[in-house]
Amino acid sequence: MNTHSFRLIVSCPDRVGLVAAVSSFLASEGGLLTEANYYRDPDSNWFFMRQVIAADSLPYGAEELTARFAPLAEQYDMQWRLTDTSKPKRVVLMASTQAHCLSDLLYRWRSGEMQFDIPCVISNHDELRSYVNWHNIPYHHIPVDQSDKTAHFADVATQIAQSRADVIVLARYMQILPPALCATYPGQIINIHHSFLPAFVGAKPYHQAAERGVKLIGATCHYVTSDLDAGPIIEQDVVRISHHDSVPDLVRKGKDVEKNVLAKGLRYHLEDRVLLHGNKTIVFE
Amino acid sequence: MNTHSFRLIVSCPDRVGLVAAVSSFLASEGGLLTEANYYRDPDSNWFFMRQVIAADSLPYGAEELTARFAPLAEQYDMQWRLTDTSKPKRVVLMASTQAHCLSDLLYRWRSGEMQFDIPCVISNHDELRSYVNWHNIPYHHIPVDQSDKTAHFADVATQIAQSRADVIVLARYMQILPPALCATYPGQIINIHHSFLPAFVGAKPYHQAAERGVKLIGATCHYVTSDLDAGPIIEQDVVRISHHDSVPDLVRKGKDVEKNVLAKGLRYHLEDRVLLHGNKTIVFE
Amino acid sequence: MNTHSFRLIVSCPDRVGLVAAVSSFLASEGGLLTEANYYRDPDSNWFFMRQVIAADSLPYGAEELTARFAPLAEQYDMQWRLTDTSKPKRVVLMASTQAHCLSDLLYRWRSGEMQFDIPCVISNHDELRSYVNWHNIPYHHIPVDQSDKTAHFADVATQIAQSRADVIVLARYMQILPPALCATYPGQIINIHHSFLPAFVGAKPYHQAAERGVKLIGATCHYVTSDLDAGPIIEQDVVRISHHDSVPDLVRKGKDVEKNVLAKGLRYHLEDRVLLHGNKTIVFE
Amino acid sequence: MNTHSFRLIVSCPDRVGLVAAVSSFLASEGGLLTEANYYRDPDSNWFFMRQVIAADSLPYGAEELTARFAPLAEQYDMQWRLTDTSKPKRVVLMASTQAHCLSDLLYRWRSGEMQFDIPCVISNHDELRSYVNWHNIPYHHIPVDQSDKTAHFADVATQIAQSRADVIVLARYMQILPPALCATYPGQIINIHHSFLPAFVGAKPYHQAAERGVKLIGATCHYVTSDLDAGPIIEQDVVRISHHDSVPDLVRKGKDVEKNVLAKGLRYHLEDRVLLHGNKTIVFE
Repeated sequence: MNTHSFRLIVSCPDRVGLVAAVSSFLASEGGLLTEANYYRDPDSNWFFMRQVIAADSLPYGAEELTARFAPLAEQYDMQWRLTDTSKPKRVVLMASTQAHCLSDLLYRWRSGEMQFDIPCVISNHDELRSYVNWHNIPYHHIPVDQSDKTAHFADVATQIAQSRADVIVLARYMQILPPALCATYPGQIINIHHSFLPAFVGAKPYHQAAERGVKLIGATCHYVTSDLDAGPIIEQDVVRISHHDSVPDLVRKGKDVEKNVLAKGLRYHLEDRVLLHGNKTIVFE
Repeated sequence: MNTHSFRLIVSCPDRVGLVAAVSSFLASEGGLLTEANYYRDPDSNWFFMRQVIAADSLPYGAEELTARFAPLAEQYDMQWRLTDTSKPKRVVLMASTQAHCLSDLLYRWRSGEMQFDIPCVISNHDELRSYVNWHNIPYHHIPVDQSDKTAHFADVATQIAQSRADVIVLARYMQILPPALCATYPGQIINIHHSFLPAFVGAKPYHQAAERGVKLIGATCHYVTSDLDAGPIIEQDVVRISHHDSVPDLVRKGKDVEKNVLAKGLRYHLEDRVLLHGNKTIVFE
Repeated sequence: MNTHSFRLIVSCPDRVGLVAAVSSFLASEGGLLTEANYYRDPDSNWFFMRQVIAADSLPYGAEELTARFAPLAEQYDMQWRLTDTSKPKRVVLMASTQAHCLSDLLYRWRSGEMQFDIPCVISNHDELRSYVNWHNIPYHHIPVDQSDKTAHFADVATQIAQSRADVIVLARYMQILPPALCATYPGQIINIHHSFLPAFVGAKPYHQAAERGVKLIGATCHYVTSDLDAGPIIEQDVVRISHHDSVPDLVRKGKDVEKNVLAKGLRYHLEDRVLLHGNKTIVFE
Repeated sequence: MNTHSFRLIVSCPDRVGLVAAVSSFLASEGGLLTEANYYRDPDSNWFFMRQVIAADSLPYGAEELTARFAPLAEQYDMQWRLTDTSKPKRVVLMASTQAHCLSDLLYRWRSGEMQFDIPCVISNHDELRSYVNWHNIPYHHIPVDQSDKTAHFADVATQIAQSRADVIVLARYMQILPPALCATYPGQIINIHHSFLPAFVGAKPYHQAAERGVKLIGATCHYVTSDLDAGPIIEQDVVRISHHDSVPDLVRKGKDVEKNVLAKGLRYHLEDRVLLHGNKTIVFE
């Protein structure tokens, strides 16, 4: 599970011989494939692949593999990246006052269940400081001036930049990010929305759900774009409710779905299982 | 399960002593309760109950019980009804060309799994005639003139009326009912919509779902009102999909959800488990 | 949700007039019912009920209500209890080294999502002390001598007794309780077993599941009896797995099910929703 | 979805260069891959693959492709087969008196949702003859002498052989097949068991489930071996139940799971998505 590996992530126009070219290259280098996923989108004729290579099957490291693969990638017009599992991604967690998603991710992190680094937690409130600090993680309280959020987001952007974040997780951080910040980290900002999108876009989805009388409520983990609640969906799930459930019951039941969906979505992202395809995702589970 | 019973369905303003009054009445008549469900909506202070009384615990029948209960009902401002399980509801099934929901309901009917009568099947196409006729059920093919549907719906209304239908099931009948017909049978027309409403209202929900890149698709069983796809929801469910699923795959996977959700919703309705509360439902499962 | 209430929990032989007698009594006292659940088991002709009465609808408290109800209870041969939501149950949590269930319950407790008191955490290891102590909860490390566990369990019994525990939760506490301890707290010790019982009884259920090649794994929350893994089941759930999942993957996926199932089962118990019926449970969800 | 394709199914010891060898071969022939699944079992170091090749990308047919691939297969010690989607598998359906699984499969067949041929239906009762005959499918009623089933199974074996069956589906056929028959069709006989195996092996699983008080019931689709209810599992699912559900309710709810699980399992088998690995299955969904 935690064996040192390289992950080769590719998307490009499909051609006969593509898998052969990539796998022949890897075989010629002696690379042992431990996982391989392929998907061809028939409509766009686009090809997606994720290959995991045992690091100890190669006589050199990620940098050299990257250099050797580059000519092939160019030949096939690939968008691609090679990641090294020995370098955990740096994940900045952003929260507000509700702790369910944050607590859940911190548990998964401290237990080693998920592998990533947390340079810091950023919050617009101070409530969760003590809990975060118990984990020896820096906590940045950046208050929001509701009449002008410019200063807040300038500070947030600075903190994220200084953290050298690979991923920003909005763990029920209740502010809408400005378009410029979204654009700086495309495919790197992950949000959890507390509805089964595209149902109940916007504010207070549990109230909307109660109002409409649905029999299931859900949560959606998606990449953040400047288009609110409309970014590419990574993962979703639902839970059954009934007329017995008041709005506070929906909130409570929804929290369990939110944290599980966010954790799953983040796991897929950290393991390089999510490939973007326009406004949709390929998820190699 | 199939014991002869009476079902007393009540909704009214809540008061202290309401359950006591109803259950004391039933006890004084000697009625044995085999099922009892209560729900109080705290916002509206409205009370809902469903009580099932073993018919053989009473010395008389449904008519007499109705007459004896009426004064109490009046006293408490109840909306109520008493149904007799020995009188199966009459269900008109309406379909188009797709047979998955119709076939499923016909199986449940002919196997005795669900108990109802089918006076006829109405369709705007002739495809399913032979299959329906094998069941010895009359099949009315009422074609639609796309430029003017008035005649079609006039015929439909006549057939339904002549069938003395208690319930009309739109089992993937692909036409929008006119408001007048909806109004004639309030809380009696049941539709299956092939999305998790309110996501993907309107036409081609599977195409909409594929376009948005959701990770679950669903189906919704609801009462038909003149407000398209917005009537009270009875039952919903979802199924997981992935990037591998093309629109035809969504259609295929969705069909299984559609037929199960419709069958569940119809069962609840036939067993008098669904109580209307504004545009929402109380479902005593 | 958190309104001050009394919960009247009853099981007794069924008779015509039982609901009438109880609800008439409550009505005569002025008690407002906010929830009411009834179940009649047709095989045993046994009746189960749970009624929730708004405390402020009565001019007196739980003690007086108990005294007034007692004669009726005697007349109908009831097993019964009346609980007061203003007195949270005292829950002793027992764990070993794995923290997923414990962390989850501590989150639900500290966020106020579930209401109970935690007099102490007992563990046969010291690993989780710092985390528990951050919550200002006493932590008792009682080591196990594998060759003779008598002393361990004597200490455990003492700590539980001194804690005046209402409930003992085995949150992945990996020791089998001695029969005497089980007998002291009938229907009060709640365990989470990491399989879908009765599949994979005993040790290493995830290994057993991998060996058998099942496509779903599960978890079971049940009351502990002296008959290992055979006590009354409160709640169960499952999660889908595939050939891709190694035993460590099963462990990881299983943990999410375990903690959710335990939390649900404990919630039902704390809210007096679980009634015992032989070796089975009635759960008024 | 229904494009003419060849499916290359392989399992063999893993080696560096295996994917390269196979995909290079296919590329050199001009074969366009439309689907590709790979799995490496780390414990046994065994490799499994399923590749789907667009038939019109090759200048020849399945026979020629088979001949050309054979040397490579030999070199790598492959167990393999190549199937042609233009040749639907021949599926003999066996049933008893309960029609839910049979009806469901017949619907999927006649609607074209699943593609296979049905040479005949075999039953130990005559009840379902008229329904099967409506589909223009031969119906063989082969009664069972409970004191000696030899003749029955001899007739069954003859019918299956004469049908040139590729697959035999036990669609709630309530007889245990003799070991010799199981051995004749390894990996070709598919059964639906009405429990979540390995819970509730043997007879009357719904009664066993009710007795044990489980909160979920399930169904298991598996290959039949001479070891009763212990063959490789293809697919499983569950449904939630409660104390309200009597044994007849379990039977009813279970039927929906049974038919869905059987249909899914059979679909996987027909699409060559199931690879055997000892007593377990690799299912490339």
